Amino acid sequence: MQIGTDAIRQTFNFICSGNSLDRLNLSQRGKPHLMWRKIGIGGLAVVLLVMLCLPVARAALDSEAQFVLNTFSFLIWGVLVMWMCAGFTMLESGSVRTKNASVICLKNIGLYSIAGLTFYLIGYNIMYVGVDASDWFGSFQFLYGVSSDEIALLEGNESAAPAVIENGYSVMSDWFFQMVFVATTASIVSGALAERVKLWSFFVFIIVLTAFIYPIIGSWTWGGGWLSDMGFQDFAGSTIVHSTGGWAALAGTLIVGARKGKFRKDGTVKVTPPSNVPAVTLGVFILWLGWFGFNGGSQLALGGAVDAVAISNILSNTNLAAAAGVMAAISLSRPILGRIDLLAGLNGAIGGLVAITAGPDIVEHYWAIVIGAVGGSICVVGLKLMERLKIDDVVGAVPAHLFAGIWGTLAVCIAAGGNLLVQVIGILAIGAFVFSVSGLAWLIIDKTLGARISLEVEDLGQDVAELGIEAYPEFVVMPEED
Amino acid sequence: MQIGTDAIRQTFNFICSGNSLDRLNLSQRGKPHLMWRKIGIGGLAVVLLVMLCLPVARAALDSEAQFVLNTFSFLIWGVLVMWMCAGFTMLESGSVRTKNASVICLKNIGLYSIAGLTFYLIGYNIMYVGVDASDWFGSFQFLYGVSSDEIALLEGNESAAPAVIENGYSVMSDWFFQMVFVATTASIVSGALAERVKLWSFFVFIIVLTAFIYPIIGSWTWGGGWLSDMGFQDFAGSTIVHSTGGWAALAGTLIVGARKGKFRKDGTVKVTPPSNVPAVTLGVFILWLGWFGFNGGSQLALGGAVDAVAISNILSNTNLAAAAGVMAAISLSRPILGRIDLLAGLNGAIGGLVAITAGPDIVEHYWAIVIGAVGGSICVVGLKLMERLKIDDVVGAVPAHLFAGIWGTLAVCIAAGGNLLVQVIGILAIGAFVFSVSGLAWLIIDKTLGARISLEVEDLGQDVAELGIEAYPEFVVMPEED
Amino acid sequence: MQIGTDAIRQTFNFICSGNSLDRLNLSQRGKPHLMWRKIGIGGLAVVLLVMLCLPVARAALDSEAQFVLNTFSFLIWGVLVMWMCAGFTMLESGSVRTKNASVICLKNIGLYSIAGLTFYLIGYNIMYVGVDASDWFGSFQFLYGVSSDEIALLEGNESAAPAVIENGYSVMSDWFFQMVFVATTASIVSGALAERVKLWSFFVFIIVLTAFIYPIIGSWTWGGGWLSDMGFQDFAGSTIVHSTGGWAALAGTLIVGARKGKFRKDGTVKVTPPSNVPAVTLGVFILWLGWFGFNGGSQLALGGAVDAVAISNILSNTNLAAAAGVMAAISLSRPILGRIDLLAGLNGAIGGLVAITAGPDIVEHYWAIVIGAVGGSICVVGLKLMERLKIDDVVGAVPAHLFAGIWGTLAVCIAAGGNLLVQVIGILAIGAFVFSVSGLAWLIIDKTLGARISLEVEDLGQDVAELGIEAYPEFVVMPEED
Repeated sequence: MQIGTDAIRQTFNFICSGNSLDRLNLSQRGKPHLMWRKIGIGGLAVVLLVMLCLPVARAALDSEAQFVLNTFSFLIWGVLVMWMCAGFTMLESGSVRTKNASVICLKNIGLYSIAGLTFYLIGYNIMYVGVDASDWFGSFQFLYGVSSDEIALLEGNESAAPAVIENGYSVMSDWFFQMVFVATTASIVSGALAERVKLWSFFVFIIVLTAFIYPIIGSWTWGGGWLSDMGFQDFAGSTIVHSTGGWAALAGTLIVGARKGKFRKDGTVKVTPPSNVPAVTLGVFILWLGWFGFNGGSQLALGGAVDAVAISNILSNTNLAAAAGVMAAISLSRPILGRIDLLAGLNGAIGGLVAITAGPDIVEHYWAIVIGAVGGSICVVGLKLMERLKIDDVVGAVPAHLFAGIWGTLAVCIAAGGNLLVQVIGILAIGAFVFSVSGLAWLIIDKTLGARISLEVEDLGQDVAELGIEAYPEFVVMPEED
Repeated sequence: MQIGTDAIRQTFNFICSGNSLDRLNLSQRGKPHLMWRKIGIGGLAVVLLVMLCLPVARAALDSEAQFVLNTFSFLIWGVLVMWMCAGFTMLESGSVRTKNASVICLKNIGLYSIAGLTFYLIGYNIMYVGVDASDWFGSFQFLYGVSSDEIALLEGNESAAPAVIENGYSVMSDWFFQMVFVATTASIVSGALAERVKLWSFFVFIIVLTAFIYPIIGSWTWGGGWLSDMGFQDFAGSTIVHSTGGWAALAGTLIVGARKGKFRKDGTVKVTPPSNVPAVTLGVFILWLGWFGFNGGSQLALGGAVDAVAISNILSNTNLAAAAGVMAAISLSRPILGRIDLLAGLNGAIGGLVAITAGPDIVEHYWAIVIGAVGGSICVVGLKLMERLKIDDVVGAVPAHLFAGIWGTLAVCIAAGGNLLVQVIGILAIGAFVFSVSGLAWLIIDKTLGARISLEVEDLGQDVAELGIEAYPEFVVMPEED
Repeated sequence: MQIGTDAIRQTFNFICSGNSLDRLNLSQRGKPHLMWRKIGIGGLAVVLLVMLCLPVARAALDSEAQFVLNTFSFLIWGVLVMWMCAGFTMLESGSVRTKNASVICLKNIGLYSIAGLTFYLIGYNIMYVGVDASDWFGSFQFLYGVSSDEIALLEGNESAAPAVIENGYSVMSDWFFQMVFVATTASIVSGALAERVKLWSFFVFIIVLTAFIYPIIGSWTWGGGWLSDMGFQDFAGSTIVHSTGGWAALAGTLIVGARKGKFRKDGTVKVTPPSNVPAVTLGVFILWLGWFGFNGGSQLALGGAVDAVAISNILSNTNLAAAAGVMAAISLSRPILGRIDLLAGLNGAIGGLVAITAGPDIVEHYWAIVIGAVGGSICVVGLKLMERLKIDDVVGAVPAHLFAGIWGTLAVCIAAGGNLLVQVIGILAIGAFVFSVSGLAWLIIDKTLGARISLEVEDLGQDVAELGIEAYPEFVVMPEED
């Protein structure tokens, strides 16, 4: 039995329409304008009409329940993204030689700390505060301003509740979620430049990257600036996060140069295998796990069936893409690299994950497999290419994050439709900005502090030379061959 | 003050009764038929009656809130189960000798990838699609079909919402949760057969296991087939997941044989201690953590107080059983194994976890302690038994997953009532099927691809021979004694 | 347009007021009395008034939705806290010398198991059952009693639902969350006393600590006893958890004594660097991650906008404090310790986390930075102080957990107001009780079982001597220098 004429249904749909608003703003995030339309109602009559609809039509979650679930979604997925920093740390400390394994640990915990502080002190404001459709950056105000409504509510002033709830989520839950993304971008740089960048010089670059470069890019896109206005699609950041990190890393490697002896004068390449393969593997599993938060949380809401369905597809596609990336990379590694290559397989997972990140919400799951498989393959080919170009990227960060990120940003259009030209403009604009500003920053750092450790320190290892410790002091380690 | 006559209460209970449906289908899972009864209402009168009940009786969550929470429960607990693959990887790479530590990493990330792909391509359909009470397997259709209602909803068609919500959870959230269970089953095999199974032969077996063997077993039980129809109880899979993995591993070890020199001609057993004890310990902690998702998520819903209470008991019992397993195994290790044995203690945790998995929702918490303690003890005794039988199981997977899994499946009846005969039938039927089909698969693999590496490769180590790398290339490792 | 006179609003606020109750009981936790006021209503008239308010004012989540979310919050954050045990294990096994790395793994998984059992058998009752405002401990009854209402509900008796829901959360979800806190306290002790405490003697102390010492302290505060009654503020346990662990560790180190040769007769201190720096780093990342659950879950509810806002602030402040702790410690390490010290930086994270734990819900985020930075600095200075005092604390647990915990407990008053005298009383009372009872327990253990291993065992290493294994048996390890 079905009550409900068209008139009732229209009234109902009008009232319920709030919770699909976020889908309409695909290209913005972080301030997804979940504000609920203030409903002008005519009194008891309408209320009763709504009630009549309840048993037969969709009753949206009430706004406070949506607020709680949206906020919790930011937090719990954000916690998983934070965990990715541990993944990068394990991946990188297992990838470098033992004599540099402690310094890379310090760089990683340091960059996560710096990103957390700078994004509070200045980055969030540049990225999100006061950004309009034509803007190239937001506010340069200092400290992120908490919501006075929220403070009032916490202090027991219930009358502040409607204003708080109208925002759709707690302001600091969004800050937390965006902050861990900044840290991910920074993590990409540390791996590529491992084993020869000075500790404090690296930290200075991370300040520039997390306080200015990433937030400016972010304001163009998720903040609601000019690229967002053009319709640039990058759901969770194939380009915005991963390519940004990749470009910054590439600029760094070009200026800092290759590790001593990596590319020999006779044209051969010195093999520098990971010192701790299980650690690298653990790192990749951590990244894979964290990516569920990275992509799932980027739905930016959990306030209704639409969000729940979307996140289910996102997690499934994320996993399919990563799995396809692994298998594609393992399969390709023998013809291209000459052996079944574990590290190619591990990098393939990352390549698949980066590639799907621009559009994990597409619903055709076989596309996720295709996108991931190509992403993983790009990693293998990219590793070879980097060697040919004599660019020394210790963990293969540029192929995995930059190359696969570009592919993913294009692939979302191929798989799900959209304006390919806008995607290309976005990729190029972000690439040009990040690469040039990062390059400039590295140049300035190099001329002032010095970007690179001395050859003596490089021989001795950064652990002993810069920190006075060894990563594995009791173990007997083989002398390095040239 | 209490409003509400019996008539009102009955009306109310009828309307609210949906959210306890899942408890009535204890033996099915994955498609828990959370569909909400279509309520025939008489109009405004009934609505007002319901409203009158609200302040004094139980107001079930509205169906969309239930949909969101059920879906989120699948996803977040599923993410924890995915994490168990990292646990198995750490446990296994720490348990094998250093010369095989890289290959076991690749096997683990590979099996997780394969499981994720095959279960999408075919496994889920066999396990869940079109299974009736007398069925032995489901559909062999290719690719898992997404819900057209969900696609319509994602595309903005609000009229699809009721049909989506009626399902109780998003279809891909269930797929995701079931997929990580397949991967767990596969992980059990890799540990037992470590250090002598060829990489690609192992992957071929994993395809068979995850695409066919496990899904067929699953269709008998959680899919709603004949064993489910008999009333076989296995809440989260002591038998369905863990014994299945254990039987497959046992069949494999018998066909592949023991590692070279493990059982000497003079009857003594070569000690093959773990190469990295902290890694093994980390692996067990990861598994313990992931098991909260494994058992907690198997409630299959978070849509009301019943589910919340059930999951609370499940997590508490899971922890009590694991803790009891550790302490029982440590205590028994001295009399049985001749020393306080860390590895027995760690395996005891797994034995306790496997044992409680068939019935973590039982409410008497002291039973969880008993079940876990016996499960942990079985691991210690089982390790000794396997040695006596000269079956080489590198990580003790068969005692922990098969023996403790059988105990757990029986124990749920002892502790909480049920038909013990049905449990025995289930254990035997699943055991016979998995053991024989796995054995056949391993035989075919052995005759075609060859299941086992050559003795030369075994001496050299799979890392160098199959992958061309070493797990710890800079560390000086002692030559192996015979 | 705005309907709603003052009268309507008052009625509405009265009905909605339940979900801010938890904020009013800041000093109690674990039994936060979330019970919903039984609302006396006058019938249909009031219901209609409420409905009129819905579109313009705050509609609190219905009580069952709150129950589900509160319960889930306990569980999911509790799972993250459990993960901290893995963090302590990695931190400690990486900090000790390789010859003692296995025993510390066994101690950690054992203490988590013991804590889980004793807190069920007796601890929870002492801490929470029957505690009044003047009490020094609760009930000594055996086993924690499950709720008969919850059992009835699980068995299908819907009429038990209101009583279950009235409690605000499932009883075992609270037990689970509190249980993992006990384990954290115990973890602190194992690190400080590593490398010279006998395994079983350690376990005996852990039984005393988790069954009696911690629960008694807990009953004074979160259980609702005399310190709670005075207004002692310690949101998530800077003093209650961390200082308690620190005092117990300090008492232990004084009685057990320093490791052989640590403090030489000539006044110099033997350097005992961590054997596995990446493992220590991983441990700190795990702790940082788990701390989001530790502090976030301590809000004890997720049933409305207030809780969601509070947890957002808590996670953000937790992260800011840890980040500030790292950077402060790294910066201070050069002037104080003579080098950029990775371990100081890692300890700085923990110091910052411990310090913010007493008041992560304060809303001025810059205070979190200050509190964390001081906490991290205290770690560095504390490490130096401990050396001067010739107290051997292997992982720096006393500076990080005790010193920074005292600072945090005072800082919450400085930053957010409160009675500083009460804070001092709380710190002193808890310190005096834990230090003296722990000292007595260690003394009795020493006189009976012997607390310390023999010098021969210490030379040989606990792994070989007590467990008969080595942590890294294949790796060549350098002979120890004196």
